[in-house]
This record gives sequence, structure tokens and C-alpha cells, in this order.
Amino acid sequence: MGRIVCTGLGPGDPDLISLRADRLIRAARHVAYFRKAGRTGQARRIVEGMLRPDCAEYPMEYPVTTELAFDSAEYNTCLADFYDGWANRLAGLAQTEEVLVLCEGDPFFYGSFMHLQIRLAGRAEVEVVPGITGMSGCWTATGRPITWGDDVMTVLAGTLPEADLVRHMRAADALVVMKTGRNLPKIRRALAAAGRLEAAWLVERGTMPQERILRLAEMPEGDCPYFALVLVHGSGRRPMAAATPAEAAAQ
Amino acid sequence: MGRIVCTGLGPGDPDLISLRADRLIRAARHVAYFRKAGRTGQARRIVEGMLRPDCAEYPMEYPVTTELAFDSAEYNTCLADFYDGWANRLAGLAQTEEVLVLCEGDPFFYGSFMHLQIRLAGRAEVEVVPGITGMSGCWTATGRPITWGDDVMTVLAGTLPEADLVRHMRAADALVVMKTGRNLPKIRRALAAAGRLEAAWLVERGTMPQERILRLAEMPEGDCPYFALVLVHGSGRRPMAAATPAEAAAQ
Repeated sequence: MGRIVCTGLGPGDPDLISLRADRLIRAARHVAYFRKAGRTGQARRIVEGMLRPDCAEYPMEYPVTTELAFDSAEYNTCLADFYDGWANRLAGLAQTEEVLVLCEGDPFFYGSFMHLQIRLAGRAEVEVVPGITGMSGCWTATGRPITWGDDVMTVLAGTLPEADLVRHMRAADALVVMKTGRNLPKIRRALAAAGRLEAAWLVERGTMPQERILRLAEMPEGDCPYFALVLVHGSGRRPMAAATPAEAAAQ
Repeated sequence: MGRIVCTGLGPGDPDLISLRADRLIRAARHVAYFRKAGRTGQARRIVEGMLRPDCAEYPMEYPVTTELAFDSAEYNTCLADFYDGWANRLAGLAQTEEVLVLCEGDPFFYGSFMHLQIRLAGRAEVEVVPGITGMSGCWTATGRPITWGDDVMTVLAGTLPEADLVRHMRAADALVVMKTGRNLPKIRRALAAAGRLEAAWLVERGTMPQERILRLAEMPEGDCPYFALVLVHGSGRRPMAAATPAEAAAQ
């Protein structure tokens, strides 16, 4: 039984890759990664300049992105076939070679690799190396803590129905909304309904060149940013004496 | 104005430190870290063998741990004085030197450094380097994804009132409970009330030597583990054809 290692690459800045991932990437002879057809792909971009000259690359190109509704039977079949095919191919390759799968962020946090992993059970040894999540990169970019003390933090997908978004946005102290893109108008309405819009930030390309951080309420309607997260910082318990002017200004 | 850099160290395994953090740690002349009085401290333990021989160390020892209730005025004053004192000391040092503050996990995710940062505003340049969170290390250790598709993930502190824990445990798909320790009996009752106890895992010392992973329901009552998180994995949308036996077994 061969071996497949999936490593997280962190939020985008290659300097935020872990020591273990760095060694795996530089030593790899077979590297696979997901990407949209016709694009370089975020995972591949992060490791630019790090791969061996004789490294074989296996870009796994999603067969669909937004052409089919993600809850349709066609979408399900199309994606299942895609993951089945690549799981078979990697399992075959791993009989004689070690295969490294690259994953932006942290593989077990909304990553695509899990769809291969579940298909590889019993067919190859699989190891996963965690990475710094995209959300950690984004909240660090804002220069403020996402959670204090006992703050409750909830992570939401922008693909959820609007009423579900509102309910969760009301219940939590700190919020992270992933999968923004064309869901952004809905996310904005849900934040407004939950009374959280004024406190919401949008972080585009966190830790990467052209990083952009702005208040969601001040963004032009219809602006559909690339690779962005929405954040609402918590403001929980903190031991404070009488605030100094500098501290008060920082709050 | 001097410079203070706080770097995340990741979940415990030194091999999961980022490339940037590794360089900062090996080059540092002044290193500060939080710890319980009389202990080595988790942050210091992670960097063992990495510091320069001439590196000056500043262990910042918490004045209290559990002797005072965390919502008491005495606790607040005691901690505020502690953070005030260290912010003053580091701000003074940073006038002529670069100071590195070490933080296990990711500094802006429930880290203690934020209590210094808020006091350092306008007094020193502060840079924060994200790290792999303890929770990423723990869910990776379980070998299973924490979130799929549109799963809602909520992070809770075990210090919250039991009724709040139950309410949030019912509302989310995936759960992470931090600050376990002596809150564990309460966390267990809340999970049971929310119908989530059977699915809950406890991960002790995730990614570290003596890592231990077990079903919370199977743990002896009263066992109060060290450095542990409780996890409930999400089980959301995934594109699957008719399950193969291997896939079915993996679910």
C-alpha cells in the first residue's frame, strides 16, 4: 500500500508554510492540486519556485464551478465522478510512489482533499499535515484579535440560506463567513438584519500581494471580490484597569 | 518607536512552526512568553533548542490561575496590573531592541498577547504572525475533516454557562470546545443535553508526544485532562456516487 500526503499551505504567503510542509514540497516527485480549469490555481501559486525540476505535476481541474446548482443531481454526479477518477489515479500512482497533494489553508477545514481521502480509505496510507487557515491569515491582516475571553465564534458558508445566516449571525460574538463571491449581497443583507453589518470587515487576498481590507458597509454594492472572507470581531471579557487614552483609542 | 513581534507557534509540534516564525525565533535576542508560575510553559517548550545562546528570556508568569473566580473584581484587577506591568516593560525594552513574544497556536485566536497589544497601541510598532491553531492540530490528529460543504462550525469556551453551551451545541454542525479542564463535567452534560455526546471526541496534547484521542462518552468521569479540546465533526454535503464498501466503512 502506497502513501499519499496532503499538506496545508496556509493562507497564501509562502513564508507562512510550516517547516514540515516546506520539506515535503521541496522533496516531492509527484505533486497534485485542485484548480479551476484554465487557472494556475491558488495552491500551485503558493509553491511557485519550490518544486524540484523533475517533479511531475497533476492539476486536478474541477469539471464545473458555477454552471450547475450545487444542490442539483447533475452537480453531485459530476463532482462524484471527478473525485472517483482522481482517487483511482492517485491510488494507482501511490502503489509505487509517494504522492503529495497541496491544499491552500488547512486540509480538514472545508478543503477539497477530504473528498479524495474518503475514497482512498483502505487503498493507500494517507497522512494530513495541518496548515494556517485562510481565516487566521485574514484576521491577523486586520490587526485585531478575532476572539477574546469567552467569545463564541461561528464560521458560516455564504452559500447557506439567508434566514440561517441571520440566525447564526445573531447568536455568535465573532463571525467568519467563507464562500463569499456572488453570495456577498445575501451576506450583507443577513448581517444588516442581524445588526452586525457596521462591525463587518471584508478581507480580500489575506496575507497575499494586493491584500485589501475594508469595512463591508463601505463597499460598493455589486463589487464581487476574489478570494475574500467576511469577519466580525468579538469583543468579549478582558481585564482592564481604567482605560488609558491610547487603549481607549485602540478599542 | 521600537518593535514588538508576536508569533504563533502552532499546536505543539515544532515541525508545524511557520518558516517566518522559525527565522524570527532563531534570530531573536529578546524573547518573552506567558506561563504558569513554576512551569516551563507550552510556548517555551515548543522552541526548546531553537533559541540563540545569548538570547535573553522574559517569562511572563500569570499572577493567578484558578485561585480567583475569573469574573471577580479581584481577578480583573490582578490580571490588568499584570498586563499593564509587562506592557510597560516590553515597551521600554522595544525602544532600543526588537522583542519577540511567543504564543502557542495563533495569537489572535484566544491568545493572551492581545492583552499586551491593546496596551502597546501608540507605544511600539507591533507585528503579529499567525500560526496553526491548536484546534487544527487536534482535528487533524483525529484523521477526519471537521467541516464539509456548508457545515456551520462554532467554537465555544468551556467556561460558558451550561445553558449557553447547550444552545450553541444544538445550533451548529461542527463544534470545538476550548478551555476544558475542570469544566469537562459541565461540557459533557451540555453535549448530552444537546444530543451530541456520542459524536464528541476529546483530543489531549494534539500533535505533541503523548497525544491521546478518545471518545468523550468513554472517558472515566472526573478525569481532568491536560491541554485538551473537545471536537464534534460536521457531516455535511458531499458529492457521492453509490458508496463503495471502503467508503461506507470510512463514514
